[in-house]
Amino acid sequence: MSAMDRSPWALEHCSIAMTMDAIGLRSSVLILREAFYGVTRFDDFVRFTQGAEANVAARLKHLTTLGLFTKHPYREHGKRTRDEYMLTDKGKDLMPVLLALMQWGDKYLQEGGTPVRVTERTTGDPVRIVARGSSGADLGVGDITIAVSGE
Amino acid sequence: MSAMDRSPWALEHCSIAMTMDAIGLRSSVLILREAFYGVTRFDDFVRFTQGAEANVAARLKHLTTLGLFTKHPYREHGKRTRDEYMLTDKGKDLMPVLLALMQWGDKYLQEGGTPVRVTERTTGDPVRIVARGSSGADLGVGDITIAVSGE
Repeated sequence: MSAMDRSPWALEHCSIAMTMDAIGLRSSVLILREAFYGVTRFDDFVRFTQGAEANVAARLKHLTTLGLFTKHPYREHGKRTRDEYMLTDKGKDLMPVLLALMQWGDKYLQEGGTPVRVTERTTGDPVRIVARGSSGADLGVGDITIAVSGE
Repeated sequence: MSAMDRSPWALEHCSIAMTMDAIGLRSSVLILREAFYGVTRFDDFVRFTQGAEANVAARLKHLTTLGLFTKHPYREHGKRTRDEYMLTDKGKDLMPVLLALMQWGDKYLQEGGTPVRVTERTTGDPVRIVARGSSGADLGVGDITIAVSGE
C-alpha cells in the first residue's frame, strides 16, 4: 500500500507527528540539546537555552513526566536541596534527532564555521547521522521504500 | 572547550536552533513528511497533513523560499495550471531528521503496531537512523565527544 492510500488510522498514528507533539517545541529541543551537552541543573538550562524560567520549568516537568529525564536531589553547601535532571535511556535515544538537526543546519544554515564539533571518541573523526539498512551502506532517499499499513 | 563554556557567539550560531527556526514547526515537519511519502500537490498536502489551507500554503511558500522545494507547473485537462512541489537536494537532506523522529516515536510512543515501514530498497530490511564515525560502528551517546568553538 502506498503512502497515497493512507487510512485515517495511519494518519492518526503517525510516529513523526506523535514525536513532534511530545518533544517538538523549540524550547524542549533546546533543553534536550543542553542535556546532551552535559547540563543537568535548572539554572544552566535557563542560561544556555536563553529561555524564561517559567517556560524552562514547564518544559523540564513535561519531559520528566514523559520519562526523558529523572530528577536527582543535590545540595550545595549552605543552600537548599535542588534537583538535577539526568537523561534516561529514552531521552538518550533522541540523540539521532538532535544530531540530525545539527548536521542539516551545519550544512545549509551556517556561514563561516560551525560552533560545535561532534566526534567519535575513539578515533576523533566526525560523527555523521545516516540511514542504514542491513547492508551497512549509507542510504539516500532513493535507496529506501516507504510502505503504509492499512490499519 | 566544553559545552559549559559556550560563548554568546556559539549560542547564537547553534545549528539545532537554526534548523528548528527554519523547519521546526509541526506543520512544516508534516509537509516534509508528505513530500518524502511522494506527495507533490497542494490538495494532497492539505489532506494528508490535515492542516488548514491557508497554513499549508504559507508553510509551502516558506519552505520553497528556503530552497527545500521547487515549484513545477502542471495542468490537468480542463483545469487551470497549478504547481507541484518537488523536494530539492537540500530538502531531501532532511530525511535523517524525519526518520529519526519516526524511529523514536515507533519505539516509545506507539502501542501495538506502527503504520509506516521504512525498508532498504535492495534488501527489504528495516532502515535505521544511526550515528556513525569513520569506524563504521553505530555510536551511542557515550561514544561521542562534543566540543565547542570559542568563536
